[in-house]
Amino acid sequence: MASTFGSLFRVTTSGESHGKAIGCIIDGCPARVPLTAEMIQPQLDRRRPGATDLNTPRKESDTVTILSGVEQGLTLGTPIALSIPNTDTRPGDYHQMETIPRPSHADFTYAEKYSLRARSGGGRASARETAARVAAGAVAEALLAAFHPVEIVAWVESVGDIQAPRPDLATLSRADVDSTLVRCPDPTVASRMIQAIETVRDAGDSLGGVVACICRGVPPGWGEPVFDKLTARLAQAMLSIPATRGFEIGAGFAATLMRGSQHNDPFEAAPGGGIRPASNRGGGIQGGISNGQPIFFRVAFKPVSTISLPQETVAYDGTPVTFEAQGRHDPCVLPRAVPVVEAMAALVLADAFLHQQIQLIPRPDGTT
Amino acid sequence: MASTFGSLFRVTTSGESHGKAIGCIIDGCPARVPLTAEMIQPQLDRRRPGATDLNTPRKESDTVTILSGVEQGLTLGTPIALSIPNTDTRPGDYHQMETIPRPSHADFTYAEKYSLRARSGGGRASARETAARVAAGAVAEALLAAFHPVEIVAWVESVGDIQAPRPDLATLSRADVDSTLVRCPDPTVASRMIQAIETVRDAGDSLGGVVACICRGVPPGWGEPVFDKLTARLAQAMLSIPATRGFEIGAGFAATLMRGSQHNDPFEAAPGGGIRPASNRGGGIQGGISNGQPIFFRVAFKPVSTISLPQETVAYDGTPVTFEAQGRHDPCVLPRAVPVVEAMAALVLADAFLHQQIQLIPRPDGTT
Amino acid sequence: MASTFGSLFRVTTSGESHGKAIGCIIDGCPARVPLTAEMIQPQLDRRRPGATDLNTPRKESDTVTILSGVEQGLTLGTPIALSIPNTDTRPGDYHQMETIPRPSHADFTYAEKYSLRARSGGGRASARETAARVAAGAVAEALLAAFHPVEIVAWVESVGDIQAPRPDLATLSRADVDSTLVRCPDPTVASRMIQAIETVRDAGDSLGGVVACICRGVPPGWGEPVFDKLTARLAQAMLSIPATRGFEIGAGFAATLMRGSQHNDPFEAAPGGGIRPASNRGGGIQGGISNGQPIFFRVAFKPVSTISLPQETVAYDGTPVTFEAQGRHDPCVLPRAVPVVEAMAALVLADAFLHQQIQLIPRPDGTT
Amino acid sequence: MASTFGSLFRVTTSGESHGKAIGCIIDGCPARVPLTAEMIQPQLDRRRPGATDLNTPRKESDTVTILSGVEQGLTLGTPIALSIPNTDTRPGDYHQMETIPRPSHADFTYAEKYSLRARSGGGRASARETAARVAAGAVAEALLAAFHPVEIVAWVESVGDIQAPRPDLATLSRADVDSTLVRCPDPTVASRMIQAIETVRDAGDSLGGVVACICRGVPPGWGEPVFDKLTARLAQAMLSIPATRGFEIGAGFAATLMRGSQHNDPFEAAPGGGIRPASNRGGGIQGGISNGQPIFFRVAFKPVSTISLPQETVAYDGTPVTFEAQGRHDPCVLPRAVPVVEAMAALVLADAFLHQQIQLIPRPDGTT
Repeated sequence: MASTFGSLFRVTTSGESHGKAIGCIIDGCPARVPLTAEMIQPQLDRRRPGATDLNTPRKESDTVTILSGVEQGLTLGTPIALSIPNTDTRPGDYHQMETIPRPSHADFTYAEKYSLRARSGGGRASARETAARVAAGAVAEALLAAFHPVEIVAWVESVGDIQAPRPDLATLSRADVDSTLVRCPDPTVASRMIQAIETVRDAGDSLGGVVACICRGVPPGWGEPVFDKLTARLAQAMLSIPATRGFEIGAGFAATLMRGSQHNDPFEAAPGGGIRPASNRGGGIQGGISNGQPIFFRVAFKPVSTISLPQETVAYDGTPVTFEAQGRHDPCVLPRAVPVVEAMAALVLADAFLHQQIQLIPRPDGTT
Repeated sequence: MASTFGSLFRVTTSGESHGKAIGCIIDGCPARVPLTAEMIQPQLDRRRPGATDLNTPRKESDTVTILSGVEQGLTLGTPIALSIPNTDTRPGDYHQMETIPRPSHADFTYAEKYSLRARSGGGRASARETAARVAAGAVAEALLAAFHPVEIVAWVESVGDIQAPRPDLATLSRADVDSTLVRCPDPTVASRMIQAIETVRDAGDSLGGVVACICRGVPPGWGEPVFDKLTARLAQAMLSIPATRGFEIGAGFAATLMRGSQHNDPFEAAPGGGIRPASNRGGGIQGGISNGQPIFFRVAFKPVSTISLPQETVAYDGTPVTFEAQGRHDPCVLPRAVPVVEAMAALVLADAFLHQQIQLIPRPDGTT
Repeated sequence: MASTFGSLFRVTTSGESHGKAIGCIIDGCPARVPLTAEMIQPQLDRRRPGATDLNTPRKESDTVTILSGVEQGLTLGTPIALSIPNTDTRPGDYHQMETIPRPSHADFTYAEKYSLRARSGGGRASARETAARVAAGAVAEALLAAFHPVEIVAWVESVGDIQAPRPDLATLSRADVDSTLVRCPDPTVASRMIQAIETVRDAGDSLGGVVACICRGVPPGWGEPVFDKLTARLAQAMLSIPATRGFEIGAGFAATLMRGSQHNDPFEAAPGGGIRPASNRGGGIQGGISNGQPIFFRVAFKPVSTISLPQETVAYDGTPVTFEAQGRHDPCVLPRAVPVVEAMAALVLADAFLHQQIQLIPRPDGTT
Repeated sequence: MASTFGSLFRVTTSGESHGKAIGCIIDGCPARVPLTAEMIQPQLDRRRPGATDLNTPRKESDTVTILSGVEQGLTLGTPIALSIPNTDTRPGDYHQMETIPRPSHADFTYAEKYSLRARSGGGRASARETAARVAAGAVAEALLAAFHPVEIVAWVESVGDIQAPRPDLATLSRADVDSTLVRCPDPTVASRMIQAIETVRDAGDSLGGVVACICRGVPPGWGEPVFDKLTARLAQAMLSIPATRGFEIGAGFAATLMRGSQHNDPFEAAPGGGIRPASNRGGGIQGGISNGQPIFFRVAFKPVSTISLPQETVAYDGTPVTFEAQGRHDPCVLPRAVPVVEAMAALVLADAFLHQQIQLIPRPDGTT
């Protein structure tokens, strides 16, 4: 199932960094959801390379085309095929990789797995593949918007050791996040992050960091027990993004330092009737199922492995070489990872939303 | 797919904490793998409640029976059904839960999801369900043992703020881990952990911690690109375990503080020919695919949410109550979580092993 | 996915003819569906061996136990595990099969597939496995009964060359079908069928025939385009039953002899508003999706391959042998196949019902 | 899973009759399989409309482009995306369908399912969708060619009541089949078929018929027990093709008229050692698993439902109308269905081939 994600809202992606196009087929989106290319393009624009000099100079317009599944601005209930052409490929940049696996990149593992050395190395491990996910995530958001609007906002919480304070999670918007080039809503910290990225870029090195994400508006009941817990699916989704190294929900690893009496979220009466957790150390999920509180999680990104600093390594044949990466790359993927994290969260939530409908089927007597 | 895990080596579990039995069906195990109940029981015994006074006094022998799929000590290639009876159920302990959702437990979210309040609350969220996973994990280890032996060893790295030093990952064995009651291989730190657990138990409170895990012997090439990256599947597997809050691979969140030049694992010639990473900051996985180095990851467990200390909360009807949990529970699940982490890792690796065979099919000319 | 059927209403079966038990796990049944063992047992009783001297003298009470997923007569939304013990196994009857593959049975193909010769031969190919399907089908019918009642009635239409006239499809009931031992609702034809079966039984030979099935009450819209057409899923379901050789929907192969102007079903105004097909040559399905007319299909069963007449064949080692089957077997499986066909139809329809709910999700404005 | 077929060799198709393109993503094809567009095009050319005046005058070149997954003529192991543009769409032809559902077409059921009336009616039910299947089937054949060559040859066995004699199944080739316009290898019978098709075409009517198919070279052991029997998957595959009404394996419905002693296939010693069935009434499959004999099956196609003869029917609003279909259509789909049947058989066999590798994994001691 390597290239398919989701079970009811299912996305299958295709495309290498250096083929003719990347794209995806989305199967399982209900009919009559308003959808146009214009609703998909903005998130692609946020992910697009070449937007600022903080990232790779590769220029791709990443213009999405809807090939099927939509008529007169409404989904048909049939597969939605999206295509994004690759226009600025430079395979010549990658000749090195035919003999030398880039350290900590997927070249070596792809070569071992498939017993071949593709021109483009571990092409499906390229960040370029994530464009298809971002497009699919926008469709997932369109689905949710039609039935049960959810606000998903991710932001750059840290770059290297530069850590932003927690923003107001109740109001944080994508506009707030985009107010700085580095997608950290705190302008002061953002300046320091930008400076740090420019410094490592000039040094031929790279930086990692943490993307945090809040999902507001998820009602109680989404997610499945056991293997498809909402936490488990989010964890899979996030760790499927290139360069990720960790995932935390709610208090995360810090929860291991608390006692139960400190970490528990007791309940209180909710203003509109019913009850709700009075605090949210659990990050909006209990027993793998949403509890109506905002879902909060964090994702760790390692520093980009493609650096232009010389590295002492060996070629495939064991010959020692000093490797200096050519080609175009980001010194820090964090700002561009923000819409990817949002997209993967949207895919998880759209699938969980559809699954939960099974519990809400009306009975013949009108009750559910 | 809530209760099924894996795509080629597929486990479907069933059973609530308080029904007649828990069990699972394993579909996709190849024929002629040596398997007996005696090969499954030891891991169940490690997970079993009531083994020491560090954990719940519920007594379950957790004796597994193989109902199908095995004949004369060999798998038949057909579904392997395993059954473990529930013998020490005390539904009376759970009458409280019919009116009051336990804070940070799954009672509330299950009630919201399914529109019913089962006697046993979020029964599938109970740690008891993990017995079926541990049994299935032992079958996965039997499969790997027959074809490509892998050593999976998990241990308790921290309990609350008590942190053990990193053991020798090249030699650490399950026997080393079991040398202390708390399954921390460092006896001195283990004593402090045990004391801390006894203290919170006496105080009616609970503790969390971190389980670390090493998988030795995984060759390069396991894991799939994109959504089924080995990291992604491990993350899903671990976050599907009750009470987990986070997952890290390799350097994990600490990788976010390094530069690429510090985090990268360059290659070196391998003693037996070929090449290999010269360091292992990546935790054995690059681009979602194993690189031949040991796979290393960490899992965060929150403190147990069922505590006997009084908690100010509300009943389902909004009435304020002071809740004091009755019933039997662990003050710290970490020691019993060790075989569960190993089992989930084994399920991920068995499935990845089978998938990788598709790349190794011999050609008519004898090559692969 | 060999042993799992369905994608939202998913059944995984386990068990060989001669192991300890057969059973299944049903995952995906919504919560709060009324379900008891008493609702499942009647269909098992109809399938049970030893009920009349028309079938195998093997005696199995086939008493089903619900191990999980149900509390106080309602489903919990969690996996429903069902178990049926094997009590009358006589492995000694099968010693022949260790050296001689029974002609047209699965012994040879299982031995080739799995590279082993199990004591019980192709144990999963045994009709005994269908007991788990019948139990699961009864749960599917319970689900449909709670939300959208559907009447599924199968009957024996022919045994060998003895063909019954088409009964009144609008009123035919299971009671009508069970009014004769051979489950053909026409008593005169049934007598001839019974006589024919007794004749071949006494001759040590066997007979095949056709089971027909009608499904009333399926509304328009069930079934998916392309690969999961309702016709396609029914065809898979029926051809997965042991001894089946063909499937037809509506006019079936006879449709190939008509012109479009003869086969087409034009529309007419429906009494309660809307429109409907005025005839039903299509068998209730157009483009793979139900059209509101009764679904009608036919399934061909070959004559039972296990016969006691001597057969000239060879042993696994190529030695010519005259094979006379021992053990217990049916001279004609048709009567017992009736509830199996109903069960498989119920599994297909329950899954299609759940899938169609995705198109009926209410919008925020109250419309669907 | 509506638009995905297969579990290891997985095809997901997209595209309506009147969108921008149809296409598919093939996931799960192993690396290093020789594949070029030139290997795919011939089967597309055989399915292409407008090739002869026996079929629809719609002109589509159906030129396939490989967008990803292939480099230098070899598969990469990553998703293979194929695209086929729609160039000759005439949506104006379909204005009728906005108010009137075509009898026995999918317009009505799609409208009921999705609560919308798309311009192109049941666009995914169009025969055009099958172009994507034919392209994917050619990839499946390329996979089989690389590892275990299988010859799949389908032909038109009957058109209306004109029935061809059984050809020599051991030697029949696609060239033999293509020797007549109607794809019936018997030239005399083919002439009568062509005449019959021309007659109904001129009368504004349509004809159905039977496509038969032989698969040579499948070794024993392919196919899974129970729900994924090779027969069951072939039945699903064939009944998923538009206009199909029935499926038979081996002797099919005729087997119901035989006794076990007549239908059974005893074994004989095979020339090269081992044993094999001495006859092939079973159609190459026993217990759902291939037995090494050629796989033989038949598929019934109804007469095309779109006819230009006037039909008395009603509009969606219940108004009686005399409907005369406009637009372009085939009077008989049988000749163009031949490569579609072959493609679906190839998809089933490629998936079964990959699954069977799990039973053939070499052990550490070199045995399998």
